[in-house]
Amino acid sequence: MSDEISSEFDRDTAVRRVAPGEYAADLAKGWAFGDVLNGGYLLAVVGRALADALPHPDPFTVSAHYLAATGAGPAVVRTDVARAGFSLSTGSASLFQRDEDGTEVERIRVLATYGELDRLRDDVRTSARPPDMPPYEECVSTDENPDPSFSPELVHRLALRLDPTSVGWAVGSPSGKGEMRAWFALADGRDPDPLSLLLTVDALPPTAFDLGLKGWVPTVELTAHVRCRPAPGPLRVALTTRNMAGGYLEEDAEVWDSADRLVAQSRQLARVLE
Amino acid sequence: MSDEISSEFDRDTAVRRVAPGEYAADLAKGWAFGDVLNGGYLLAVVGRALADALPHPDPFTVSAHYLAATGAGPAVVRTDVARAGFSLSTGSASLFQRDEDGTEVERIRVLATYGELDRLRDDVRTSARPPDMPPYEECVSTDENPDPSFSPELVHRLALRLDPTSVGWAVGSPSGKGEMRAWFALADGRDPDPLSLLLTVDALPPTAFDLGLKGWVPTVELTAHVRCRPAPGPLRVALTTRNMAGGYLEEDAEVWDSADRLVAQSRQLARVLE
Repeated sequence: MSDEISSEFDRDTAVRRVAPGEYAADLAKGWAFGDVLNGGYLLAVVGRALADALPHPDPFTVSAHYLAATGAGPAVVRTDVARAGFSLSTGSASLFQRDEDGTEVERIRVLATYGELDRLRDDVRTSARPPDMPPYEECVSTDENPDPSFSPELVHRLALRLDPTSVGWAVGSPSGKGEMRAWFALADGRDPDPLSLLLTVDALPPTAFDLGLKGWVPTVELTAHVRCRPAPGPLRVALTTRNMAGGYLEEDAEVWDSADRLVAQSRQLARVLE
Repeated sequence: MSDEISSEFDRDTAVRRVAPGEYAADLAKGWAFGDVLNGGYLLAVVGRALADALPHPDPFTVSAHYLAATGAGPAVVRTDVARAGFSLSTGSASLFQRDEDGTEVERIRVLATYGELDRLRDDVRTSARPPDMPPYEECVSTDENPDPSFSPELVHRLALRLDPTSVGWAVGSPSGKGEMRAWFALADGRDPDPLSLLLTVDALPPTAFDLGLKGWVPTVELTAHVRCRPAPGPLRVALTTRNMAGGYLEEDAEVWDSADRLVAQSRQLARVLE
């Protein structure tokens, strides 16, 4: 919503209020994998609309159900406030696009509760530990992918550095464990904030690759919790899948900041297409 | 929706369609802790309305945002179908009650995707293992609570047997780990099904007790994934909290059936009140 937008993430997730609770967006093809926009990017767009529609600025918990693949181009986000409380407020949002014959189609429906991270107490009592992974310089840039045909647009928006133990899939030797760890930053150097964490939780190669699956694993639902404002600098992201069954798998993400704080947790249910 | 209802869970979660997409419920005080109805019970009520409103029978992923405490008495659930697909359908639901002056107040808003569990492939490839806990007979019935003043109505609806390592909080010696494990069954002997799993994921004493907290830890948001139809017999439930920070904590649940299958996973964001 700023007049001076210097980062491509901010520019490409910008929304413009066109009516009370209604926002126009121009979804950018730079965040696509093939023709399909990344789910985390779309969540950040919807999250920005909700940050304007709700009286609190920061996403505390956001659940998105993905109804259909979303491509680049114009979109509308319609929001509905369920409750505006003192500490927390809750609302729904839906992202719509028009199909070829002009019919409006709902692509994503979201339910979210927002609050104000800077107002939280600063106590931390956690048993979670940051992922055990090599420093940034020793991880593998996705620019170094040995398969030159694998160069989705999305890769160029991100400065991802994969833990060397997480790249076996790229050379035909997945670990089979269902794990993926990486350093995450935006390629344009923009520092992380609560909104960009909504992208971060869904921006790594899927754990399905590490399980030896090669097809598309579309997200059915993703819920992200933002637990504190991230410090500047690259983030560490650890994904794990514990249960693949009946053609579905869950993928959990933990995001740690440069100050070793757990800044976001997410879980998605994804469908294994074959 | 059955005419012959022999279980108290089925009777107390029954909903009656009063208009297209709109359902009346009579919330039963038997599922309360003090004056506040259990969030899992309420999710099962809303889940039953959605099972009727959507073309698929089983909750695959259900996200509930709790807006205000809900007490016993009449309630209305209004549903809205977002998408009805071949394998999956998605819809929203809101539960309303009337306050003292008759104003309708939204208590819970839900976003859910339903499917048909019996249509899933039967492949299972999981690294998750059932919780390491003693057999049912060696666990501690909540009827044996040493504090006789602690006897919320909810306890009588459930046949909970707590892992002995999870009961320190009841005698003033919480482990501090943020874990809780128990056998779960309905007191009336009704076998588990996908709908009752929505209760199961939120029916144990909170991990907050094991962290040494004594106050109320209200759920802000809970998302449950039902991964397969549970086999008859008692369930094992393992709760863990990894991160308590800024006055919030997440609580993860895994539910295992008598056939050693992971039948449900859930995560909630809860607020630590002091």
